[in-house]
Amino acid sequence: MNTPVTVELNCDMGEGYGRWKFAPDEELMPYISTANIACGFHAGDPRIMRDTVRKAVELGLQIGAHVALPDIIGFGRRRIAITPEEMRDNTVYQIGALKAFVEAEGGTLANVKPHGVMYVMAQDDEALGEAVVQAVADVDPALPLYALNDKNAGIAREYGVTIVPEGFVDLHYDRAGNLLIERVKEAWDPEFVAARAVRLVREGVVAANDGTDVAVNRQTICLHGDAPNSVDVLRTVRRRLEEDGIAVAPLVAH
Amino acid sequence: MNTPVTVELNCDMGEGYGRWKFAPDEELMPYISTANIACGFHAGDPRIMRDTVRKAVELGLQIGAHVALPDIIGFGRRRIAITPEEMRDNTVYQIGALKAFVEAEGGTLANVKPHGVMYVMAQDDEALGEAVVQAVADVDPALPLYALNDKNAGIAREYGVTIVPEGFVDLHYDRAGNLLIERVKEAWDPEFVAARAVRLVREGVVAANDGTDVAVNRQTICLHGDAPNSVDVLRTVRRRLEEDGIAVAPLVAH
Amino acid sequence: MNTPVTVELNCDMGEGYGRWKFAPDEELMPYISTANIACGFHAGDPRIMRDTVRKAVELGLQIGAHVALPDIIGFGRRRIAITPEEMRDNTVYQIGALKAFVEAEGGTLANVKPHGVMYVMAQDDEALGEAVVQAVADVDPALPLYALNDKNAGIAREYGVTIVPEGFVDLHYDRAGNLLIERVKEAWDPEFVAARAVRLVREGVVAANDGTDVAVNRQTICLHGDAPNSVDVLRTVRRRLEEDGIAVAPLVAH
Amino acid sequence: MNTPVTVELNCDMGEGYGRWKFAPDEELMPYISTANIACGFHAGDPRIMRDTVRKAVELGLQIGAHVALPDIIGFGRRRIAITPEEMRDNTVYQIGALKAFVEAEGGTLANVKPHGVMYVMAQDDEALGEAVVQAVADVDPALPLYALNDKNAGIAREYGVTIVPEGFVDLHYDRAGNLLIERVKEAWDPEFVAARAVRLVREGVVAANDGTDVAVNRQTICLHGDAPNSVDVLRTVRRRLEEDGIAVAPLVAH
Repeated sequence: MNTPVTVELNCDMGEGYGRWKFAPDEELMPYISTANIACGFHAGDPRIMRDTVRKAVELGLQIGAHVALPDIIGFGRRRIAITPEEMRDNTVYQIGALKAFVEAEGGTLANVKPHGVMYVMAQDDEALGEAVVQAVADVDPALPLYALNDKNAGIAREYGVTIVPEGFVDLHYDRAGNLLIERVKEAWDPEFVAARAVRLVREGVVAANDGTDVAVNRQTICLHGDAPNSVDVLRTVRRRLEEDGIAVAPLVAH
Repeated sequence: MNTPVTVELNCDMGEGYGRWKFAPDEELMPYISTANIACGFHAGDPRIMRDTVRKAVELGLQIGAHVALPDIIGFGRRRIAITPEEMRDNTVYQIGALKAFVEAEGGTLANVKPHGVMYVMAQDDEALGEAVVQAVADVDPALPLYALNDKNAGIAREYGVTIVPEGFVDLHYDRAGNLLIERVKEAWDPEFVAARAVRLVREGVVAANDGTDVAVNRQTICLHGDAPNSVDVLRTVRRRLEEDGIAVAPLVAH
Repeated sequence: MNTPVTVELNCDMGEGYGRWKFAPDEELMPYISTANIACGFHAGDPRIMRDTVRKAVELGLQIGAHVALPDIIGFGRRRIAITPEEMRDNTVYQIGALKAFVEAEGGTLANVKPHGVMYVMAQDDEALGEAVVQAVADVDPALPLYALNDKNAGIAREYGVTIVPEGFVDLHYDRAGNLLIERVKEAWDPEFVAARAVRLVREGVVAANDGTDVAVNRQTICLHGDAPNSVDVLRTVRRRLEEDGIAVAPLVAH
Repeated sequence: MNTPVTVELNCDMGEGYGRWKFAPDEELMPYISTANIACGFHAGDPRIMRDTVRKAVELGLQIGAHVALPDIIGFGRRRIAITPEEMRDNTVYQIGALKAFVEAEGGTLANVKPHGVMYVMAQDDEALGEAVVQAVADVDPALPLYALNDKNAGIAREYGVTIVPEGFVDLHYDRAGNLLIERVKEAWDPEFVAARAVRLVREGVVAANDGTDVAVNRQTICLHGDAPNSVDVLRTVRRRLEEDGIAVAPLVAH
């Protein structure tokens, strides 16, 4: 029998804007442990932020600030040549805004996770990666910073910040461990995704697109809420993990 | 000889946007005790917010969140029919964002002050006034909320929030105590403004436009940085107050 | 047997933003004759505008500029206190932008229709109503301006602009002819809506919410694409009109 | 004696936003022949566009659409990774909007000139350069497209569009003919700039930063209105050109 273990399931939430909605947040929330909530720069106006935070607090979810480049029309997916200072200050602004909502609803902000191209830029560009770390440290170095890998762990340590690499099971990796982003998230077979999730937790690997195994951190799995069948996928992943004796729980104790 | 007393001089700061500047903030800061810093909704992008906060912290100024309606083009001066929930959540968002910068720079956010038409709407509309109070309470009820008068003091008390009415000496009042806003702030004679300031502190009144006296709170005086001669005005007010034995100091101890 | 007549069916189109969509435009377009296309102020970024215009031109639809107040988060439904000059210039800007896309795709801009609260403000406030007329005249007085009623017909005539009042069959009127707007458009029975449409064309009236008849212009009917069952409603209305010998055709010949 | 010749002096205008102003447009306009007017994406709201167009028409200036990337905070100077389709459609949108104002004021839109980093991207990236050409052709291929050099002249010709390379006399070139942009425009000696302008017209060259000569087109000179001494610079350039028998006149006859 397997040793009982836990894993975090995190999902981006609150990615509507004004009258527009995106993923079926309320249907997805019961299956996850952690909600990364949009902060108004790629999605998420103050009303949506508040409502999403409230629901997440009610369900006892861990809440992360899902910070992004300032680009509503491009949904935070278009690279913008900003300076490290702009990156840092944009990030502080967003974390501060979301933190206020979380605390107003009686919760505690627990982590920070960059969105879209900012997630990639923070990995690829050293100065921008440090800028994001600085922003986290500016607000609270105890907030773990989610990332693709641990490349920035060293610089983060200097600021007292912990990097938490994520694992992905509904996207492909290449053999070097780079994510192959889908421009529009497609439907993946829920059982296939769930099997990858179980293996990730049990073995610490996912299969890359060439069949080789890529080692990934087994603490937290990111799942996408914007796939056409995301509710099915999340429900199946959650069930399969639990059937395998894996508890789904927030990473950050509070 | 006059009894030594103190008064706060507060001024709106950081009201640029991107490449555009507005008032000569750095020249004005030495004369004031309190900076209400724009939060990005009527002015103030994250870089400007950060820089303005840093300078204010360096000078030991009290820092307030200068919250506004979401209207960059209209500079927060066009009435927008928003719901109380929108008012509350827009305000929480802005206070949270500014608070993060203040704390990142080693300061403490000390007060909240609505800008432009939001200042008026919070006075005129009961539900919107309560919404602003709620937002302050959501973040920290210990933050005093600056206002034209004490009309919302009762409802604020229910939330544990203190209303601080301001006095104005570079704008006209009518005899009922309403402000007569200038669409574009004009140059006023510095000595005239300074004499009004001294009288406000000593007697608790300012002369209305019909010559009658209007009673105003003598704790804090708001001065405008966007007058063409604002540096002269602030320098003169500060000097005349001090010559009269009135110390200029922040309202909130920290 | 009924005399053969025609009526225009117009519907708002292109009301997405960035990654967000709204109504199922492509499924609705086959049933309408006229598309009012959002111009970027309440919805509709340049990519969406272009794509929507292209599809409308391909189907031979009449194209209108669906101009709005500048309010993406509020979807153009929050009253903003703008001056007549701002109203006029915002409107010229939007008509010009959409016209460029229409002509780039080989079509001809054929009408102008204000959206949301701007539609109401142009009816209620004389100066703002004239400002919209001026904007149309600034671009091309031959563009008819769609409106709730003919209240501005006199002032429009002075500018050489024609007002075209619309009839609504999927919203309630009160007996005075005011529309009772649904905050979120609800599903109405398609046959009920269709029967109202036929009666509108044949008799020039719709039943108000108190059972009395309200006289409405029979040239053009506005239908909502954002009802949950909008495709059903539009298909049914189109079919029933045609069964009754009423042809659906654009109002403006070109 | 020199042969009488003409040159165009073009300058960016209308680069304010809401309450903020930038260059002293009204003082500069008398010295130039051509105003490139901001279209709302990097600067210029509809009120400012209208007012700037009106003044330009009154003075008989040639008017160009000064199109930009969508980035108010970054003043159109931050590279954004947009697709060619986005580039084309953003550009069509802006040209259309400005054209409507120009025609409303009785003028004729005469040219198109990209701003800031868009100017550079259109030179550096073939697909983006073609996208801008397409946008011009979409609106009116008779509008000349101003550019740093004639690199896109071939592709432009396929669309029936003419490229007009500009000469710069208040910025440095390197010997390869690349501009060395100043992040914030500094004051240059007016007589020095004016001498370069005369030489440019008479000889078709400007001195690069290493003392070598760079050949530039002598039809149009771009001058910057945002230098601290821009009024002096433009007045001096105009005077010196005229003293040398060089008439300042729009490039495009209308």
